[in-house]
Amino acid sequence: MDILTNRSKNDFAPLPPMGWNSYDYYDTTVDEAALMRNAAYMAEHLKEYGWEYVVADIQWYAHDPGSQRERFQYIPFGELELDEWGRLLPDPKRFPSSAGGAGFKPLADYVHSLGLKFGIHIMRGIPRIAAHLHLPVAYDNPVTRERLAACPEAGFPPCPERGLNAADVADPASVCGWNPDMYGVGALAEGQVYYDSLLSLYASWGVDFIKCDDICNTNLYPHRPYSARHEVEMLSRAIRHCGRDTVLSLSPGPALIEEAWHYETYANMWRITDDFWDDWRLLKDMFKRCQLWQSHVSRGCYPDCDMLPLGVLGKGFGRERNTNFTWEEQRTMMTLWCLFGSPLMLGAELTKLDKRTLTLLTNSAVLAMRDPRFRPRQLRLTEFEAVWTASDASGEICPDDKNSTLYVALFNLSDEKRRVSVPLAECGVRLSHGALCLRDLWEDTLLQTRELLQAELAPHACAAYRLL
Amino acid sequence: MDILTNRSKNDFAPLPPMGWNSYDYYDTTVDEAALMRNAAYMAEHLKEYGWEYVVADIQWYAHDPGSQRERFQYIPFGELELDEWGRLLPDPKRFPSSAGGAGFKPLADYVHSLGLKFGIHIMRGIPRIAAHLHLPVAYDNPVTRERLAACPEAGFPPCPERGLNAADVADPASVCGWNPDMYGVGALAEGQVYYDSLLSLYASWGVDFIKCDDICNTNLYPHRPYSARHEVEMLSRAIRHCGRDTVLSLSPGPALIEEAWHYETYANMWRITDDFWDDWRLLKDMFKRCQLWQSHVSRGCYPDCDMLPLGVLGKGFGRERNTNFTWEEQRTMMTLWCLFGSPLMLGAELTKLDKRTLTLLTNSAVLAMRDPRFRPRQLRLTEFEAVWTASDASGEICPDDKNSTLYVALFNLSDEKRRVSVPLAECGVRLSHGALCLRDLWEDTLLQTRELLQAELAPHACAAYRLL
Amino acid sequence: MDILTNRSKNDFAPLPPMGWNSYDYYDTTVDEAALMRNAAYMAEHLKEYGWEYVVADIQWYAHDPGSQRERFQYIPFGELELDEWGRLLPDPKRFPSSAGGAGFKPLADYVHSLGLKFGIHIMRGIPRIAAHLHLPVAYDNPVTRERLAACPEAGFPPCPERGLNAADVADPASVCGWNPDMYGVGALAEGQVYYDSLLSLYASWGVDFIKCDDICNTNLYPHRPYSARHEVEMLSRAIRHCGRDTVLSLSPGPALIEEAWHYETYANMWRITDDFWDDWRLLKDMFKRCQLWQSHVSRGCYPDCDMLPLGVLGKGFGRERNTNFTWEEQRTMMTLWCLFGSPLMLGAELTKLDKRTLTLLTNSAVLAMRDPRFRPRQLRLTEFEAVWTASDASGEICPDDKNSTLYVALFNLSDEKRRVSVPLAECGVRLSHGALCLRDLWEDTLLQTRELLQAELAPHACAAYRLL
Amino acid sequence: MDILTNRSKNDFAPLPPMGWNSYDYYDTTVDEAALMRNAAYMAEHLKEYGWEYVVADIQWYAHDPGSQRERFQYIPFGELELDEWGRLLPDPKRFPSSAGGAGFKPLADYVHSLGLKFGIHIMRGIPRIAAHLHLPVAYDNPVTRERLAACPEAGFPPCPERGLNAADVADPASVCGWNPDMYGVGALAEGQVYYDSLLSLYASWGVDFIKCDDICNTNLYPHRPYSARHEVEMLSRAIRHCGRDTVLSLSPGPALIEEAWHYETYANMWRITDDFWDDWRLLKDMFKRCQLWQSHVSRGCYPDCDMLPLGVLGKGFGRERNTNFTWEEQRTMMTLWCLFGSPLMLGAELTKLDKRTLTLLTNSAVLAMRDPRFRPRQLRLTEFEAVWTASDASGEICPDDKNSTLYVALFNLSDEKRRVSVPLAECGVRLSHGALCLRDLWEDTLLQTRELLQAELAPHACAAYRLL
Repeated sequence: MDILTNRSKNDFAPLPPMGWNSYDYYDTTVDEAALMRNAAYMAEHLKEYGWEYVVADIQWYAHDPGSQRERFQYIPFGELELDEWGRLLPDPKRFPSSAGGAGFKPLADYVHSLGLKFGIHIMRGIPRIAAHLHLPVAYDNPVTRERLAACPEAGFPPCPERGLNAADVADPASVCGWNPDMYGVGALAEGQVYYDSLLSLYASWGVDFIKCDDICNTNLYPHRPYSARHEVEMLSRAIRHCGRDTVLSLSPGPALIEEAWHYETYANMWRITDDFWDDWRLLKDMFKRCQLWQSHVSRGCYPDCDMLPLGVLGKGFGRERNTNFTWEEQRTMMTLWCLFGSPLMLGAELTKLDKRTLTLLTNSAVLAMRDPRFRPRQLRLTEFEAVWTASDASGEICPDDKNSTLYVALFNLSDEKRRVSVPLAECGVRLSHGALCLRDLWEDTLLQTRELLQAELAPHACAAYRLL
Repeated sequence: MDILTNRSKNDFAPLPPMGWNSYDYYDTTVDEAALMRNAAYMAEHLKEYGWEYVVADIQWYAHDPGSQRERFQYIPFGELELDEWGRLLPDPKRFPSSAGGAGFKPLADYVHSLGLKFGIHIMRGIPRIAAHLHLPVAYDNPVTRERLAACPEAGFPPCPERGLNAADVADPASVCGWNPDMYGVGALAEGQVYYDSLLSLYASWGVDFIKCDDICNTNLYPHRPYSARHEVEMLSRAIRHCGRDTVLSLSPGPALIEEAWHYETYANMWRITDDFWDDWRLLKDMFKRCQLWQSHVSRGCYPDCDMLPLGVLGKGFGRERNTNFTWEEQRTMMTLWCLFGSPLMLGAELTKLDKRTLTLLTNSAVLAMRDPRFRPRQLRLTEFEAVWTASDASGEICPDDKNSTLYVALFNLSDEKRRVSVPLAECGVRLSHGALCLRDLWEDTLLQTRELLQAELAPHACAAYRLL
Repeated sequence: MDILTNRSKNDFAPLPPMGWNSYDYYDTTVDEAALMRNAAYMAEHLKEYGWEYVVADIQWYAHDPGSQRERFQYIPFGELELDEWGRLLPDPKRFPSSAGGAGFKPLADYVHSLGLKFGIHIMRGIPRIAAHLHLPVAYDNPVTRERLAACPEAGFPPCPERGLNAADVADPASVCGWNPDMYGVGALAEGQVYYDSLLSLYASWGVDFIKCDDICNTNLYPHRPYSARHEVEMLSRAIRHCGRDTVLSLSPGPALIEEAWHYETYANMWRITDDFWDDWRLLKDMFKRCQLWQSHVSRGCYPDCDMLPLGVLGKGFGRERNTNFTWEEQRTMMTLWCLFGSPLMLGAELTKLDKRTLTLLTNSAVLAMRDPRFRPRQLRLTEFEAVWTASDASGEICPDDKNSTLYVALFNLSDEKRRVSVPLAECGVRLSHGALCLRDLWEDTLLQTRELLQAELAPHACAAYRLL
Repeated sequence: MDILTNRSKNDFAPLPPMGWNSYDYYDTTVDEAALMRNAAYMAEHLKEYGWEYVVADIQWYAHDPGSQRERFQYIPFGELELDEWGRLLPDPKRFPSSAGGAGFKPLADYVHSLGLKFGIHIMRGIPRIAAHLHLPVAYDNPVTRERLAACPEAGFPPCPERGLNAADVADPASVCGWNPDMYGVGALAEGQVYYDSLLSLYASWGVDFIKCDDICNTNLYPHRPYSARHEVEMLSRAIRHCGRDTVLSLSPGPALIEEAWHYETYANMWRITDDFWDDWRLLKDMFKRCQLWQSHVSRGCYPDCDMLPLGVLGKGFGRERNTNFTWEEQRTMMTLWCLFGSPLMLGAELTKLDKRTLTLLTNSAVLAMRDPRFRPRQLRLTEFEAVWTASDASGEICPDDKNSTLYVALFNLSDEKRRVSVPLAECGVRLSHGALCLRDLWEDTLLQTRELLQAELAPHACAAYRLL
């Protein structure tokens, strides 16, 4: 019996994943040098604070991506790098180490050598061109072969005489609304064989993290926005089959709250928003999204607020620029993401990070809030302010209870300076005679108060506290 | 100036088209012999009553259609017959006369030689395989060349150096939910060039009628069910450009009543129902659909109740069988289709028609109701009965007015024998002292009445009258 | 047998009704003097051009309407004038002649004495207060009594011992979203008795026209926007029962195109828009609405573009003002309403009309387009222009055909001066060698042309022509 | 400062409430004797197991409820018992002790004397008749007066000279789709004054629990199903103002998952289903509903599966009958409700409970699962079976960990006998060498196993275990 089935996918990510993703800076144009450069930076400056994933985002398999940017983000019917089994490979022009069938293994090895983890983006499904060319599916890859031997009754389809091919797997009516590369995979055993062949390859490369796109919300079909739910299950099964701990991240959002159970059962993280960028309206809106999902953060299960658009961004989109977020907004974003328990994926060219931004990313006291044992709870949300707490206490907290932790964050969502306050009793603190002592996590100061916690906040600013 | 622009598409079909369509008997498997056999029958037995179109329905371009019927009606990623410009051609195995690039011309010539007209079914869009193979678009076909010469300012795209190809035309996010052959065409000038190349080919073959599918209701996208409206406009324009009178029929239904104006402006007929078959519930339901569309029948503009599933049906679907409609239901169907003004397309193997069914199709008095000058009007519809009139009078009709015509039909929609009646005044007849004289169109008898028109009707039966 | 059942509701309004309505100027505050003043003006200045209805709009039954305008248009739970049978009566303070139970009879008599017709606005349903007070329904009014005698089997409910009362009729779950006065009436025989009692009263007053509100689109319930369809049928039946020709107008819009058949069968006019005011965006939008409904104009059946907000408006709303429409927009509105075949209801204090506006309303050549025999057809609608025709010809028109009429209107919908043109062939004119002669209906000039009809138009302006 | 604001509504119900509700047996007809009889039974037989609430359900204020049952469940415009301030009072005929203005105080005193708690059902809003009669609102009740004195700046409306009355409070466009008694209350300060007057009265009676109806899902308005959200807030505020711990229960369902945060913030329990009855399909369906809400059970916050239709039911509906649930189904229901953490409200005439049913309700081991510290989690749901766990462990459980508890329940949802099993590792148990020991909660036996927990289950049966 396969020992691995005893390992829960929740063990792959006991804390919300932290890392870097190539998209916000490179769009479709990331290459090997960029990934190595950013990985090296992470190892040197960020690793000790918990940052560990290095993720190559969309179209690493495309030839000449970005060459028709004025018309297309993704060139329709463009050339893709494929192996003989219809599986996408890194574009060898951009990833020279992948040549000769090595795939992402050399790059993953490098990342691992730095003590980091390696992730890739994929589109759900199978390349359209593979289906039209009737490319064979790697039916007898080692994993599938082994499983068939161990488990002949597993119900996998007998290999048709002509062999299984991509046309048997692809669903011609399931396409993505914004990327032209793939067909969805039908809900048949043949599809599982294909996904197994995919994960078998990725495991052989050493992939630790997969961000699968067009799957969390298949927005071409608004009347059935979770139409690829069977593909989520197939991916989850293929991860268990492949024998390598692989975090599964689903994109794009917004995820569907009524499918929370499904995401939690099969994936590690799922996007609760469409692409997030450095725009205050999107950040302000995130408070509502976090409100919606606040009860759905648990070990191995993370609603995902999307990448952190910090530092220098946008080169791959045609214009390199600094983030539009003010310093206050950056802190507000970090505070909300951490207290809520979202994964943290940096969207920035790391090597261009300025010192102040670096302090934002290396505040251990703030990052410590990212623990699913602390259950986030929004106490208040208005047009003008928000108040959140997070705690591992199940009832009231006594100030001298050393076994419980309480975080409180105050947010000024208005465009004016504003005093934001909250009675400590509302936060679940049992008041006593003496004053309470709190640590201000950003200012790294101590403060004392009796009944009310309050702060004078600049527009869009926040304050975050831990009860000592 | 192009003389053809003076010819209205409404002139192509001054009466609702009548003909035969291969689908109900042959599904995807129709061949040349079958078309010729049915055409010959039509010329001999039906032509004099107005039947004239012979239409080859879906997938005449597919190799081995129907060979995986237990799994697919349309084989995904199956082989299609294409010319070098990415245009579909008849499967030469089934249509031997089409070999050597002749296309449907020999068959169309044969049909024309019988005094009939020739029609084909197409799926909207461009073959997917043409896009993936980057096949060139027949940019400089004679029609396009001529138009460019006459009208250099027409706004057609300058031929890119590499030439225009199918990948420039296909919209990778626009597919059909039930047939895997095509991509939709984007709303760009390039798309018009492609459609022009298509109609130019069809005109050269001698095609008189095009039934375009997945266009009247693009039901994969229920939130935008008329998502291919620009392709309707492109087809309409291509018909005007090609210089040949070509009736444009849109499928499948249900058409969208809020788009009635668009259908009326660009097409000749549009399906108001999903596929209609020989099932009483569908027939009964058609009374509501005709009610919805009764004001939208006019010269050259016909809401389409779909094929008449009569006689022998179904061989291509795997089981040859007689229609399930009773004799009464067949008359009810003919009466409603004719009075309402729907096109009449026979879905039957004509050579197997029995004599009684033939009488149904050759009742000139009934067929005469099919004239858009007679405006159909439902007076009543209940669970149990329906009453319709059609007339060319704008106000009341005097019994002795020789310039106006009035038809009245009574329908028993219940499952019991039933007396159905209507006051003549309600039909718009100005009552006078004497009795009125009416002709019973099915029984070919005369009857007289004063105020009330009534009939004793068997279950699902009807009676139809013309005021003399 | 009741002779009246032979009279069709379509005979009550063989042309789209023309008249005046108190709403745009008076809101809820119209009174007897105002109605008489406007009626007198109409008789003197407008009657000869076809204007005939004088309509008292909403809440003529309310005490102190408009007295809390800063908070409410319709005062919730305000006092209403009722008779002992729960039927609303004119507020005697505002309508002194109605005192003593006379109701609107004296006022209607006055309007009739001027050769005009009298109309009232009602809300669908029964006064809420009548239901809560269990007021009796006028079960044995003359009309009901007579019908019961003549037709004992008619199925009317035996009068319960305690008598029928408003609580038996009112549907407590059917209310209006914007007016608090009424409950809807349930789909029961009791409801018909109530509506009969209502129409019997109105007929005794001499009412010629009823505008019933909250019925064409019951917008509090967007998921079943025609939830009061049974009340439309009840009203229609009550009109037939009451023995007086009474035009039935349904409000508010937008009417539902999929219910066109129902409106056409039971009513004379129905609003295709929410309240229309003097705002160019609303006027421009009307071209789409008319496009949607163009096939549904016929004798006695009129899609209604709503009142004409001309001249002096708004006093009852708190601020008297001149229409915001430019002169060009006013002509555009008149042209579209007339060519399309909408009813024309003036929303203006007539006694304050200026001379130029008067010429707009008394252009017989323009008003002559309002004949349902001329079928309106939009040829083109873009962001920038529109072209409409109307004709009684069923096919092409020969220029020398004296039996057919053709109207063409060209509209500049852009904000710039613009030349708008249309080929005459597109309008259905068979071209001949000589030039065609047309009359410009607004400029009252003749012009000649060969193939193209064109006009240089100021922003928002139009030109309208009749083929001679 | 008001000391009460420091008390959280979550403290009012630290465990999911347990009790009895009159509806399933009495419909609208419950009376004082019935409530006392059932309370006495509960005190004697059930109290020691945690059952404590005695709730009088709908229309305790109505005269002659149920007297027109063949036509109405709730008689439209029927007579209601009101005080002079428009507040509903118990019908004195059915509740004699309430006479003379005593209200429910005597009955609540009796219930309290038994050591139990007293609850009432209310419809959201204000009696319609109070608005139509302009009854005054109890503006200067003690609570409001005190708060105004303490807090003059609170923003409460200055009492208009004529006094505040029900017509100022009622929203005439907000009604219930199935009960005719009330108008919703508008989102104005006046509404809060009304709700304060209501809760002030209820607190004076000694009410401990309010089930408010037509508020959790205002299903007359499916496009805005939480249209009364402001009334939930007003009720919550009024409870805080009134100074008495009062559990707030919202009805009917289904509650909206996207509003989970709002329910959790303002209420104690909310119905996740429409009315639940003794029908297997509804019970089976509840597994999906619990799946949807499983992350939303916490201290003071309970998704509510509705009453338990056990024992003898239905007399008030016209036919007394035994529950339709089989014994297996009853156990399945109890197991799911308890493990999930739903409130438990008996819908049965308690005095007619048979012994076996009583054992179902007094199994302390099963009832102990009802603790929000045990987080429910569905591991599997198919057409045929379900597996649930509940635990207070945050990660894996070691079998010898004495600080954590794990429950596992296996359900056979099929109509056949079935073996249902689950690997213990999947339940979060860290496997060790020895066997694990579990207690079967229904059979009260111990069992040992190593890796797999399994049970042979009759149709619709279940097994529930606690890890020792």
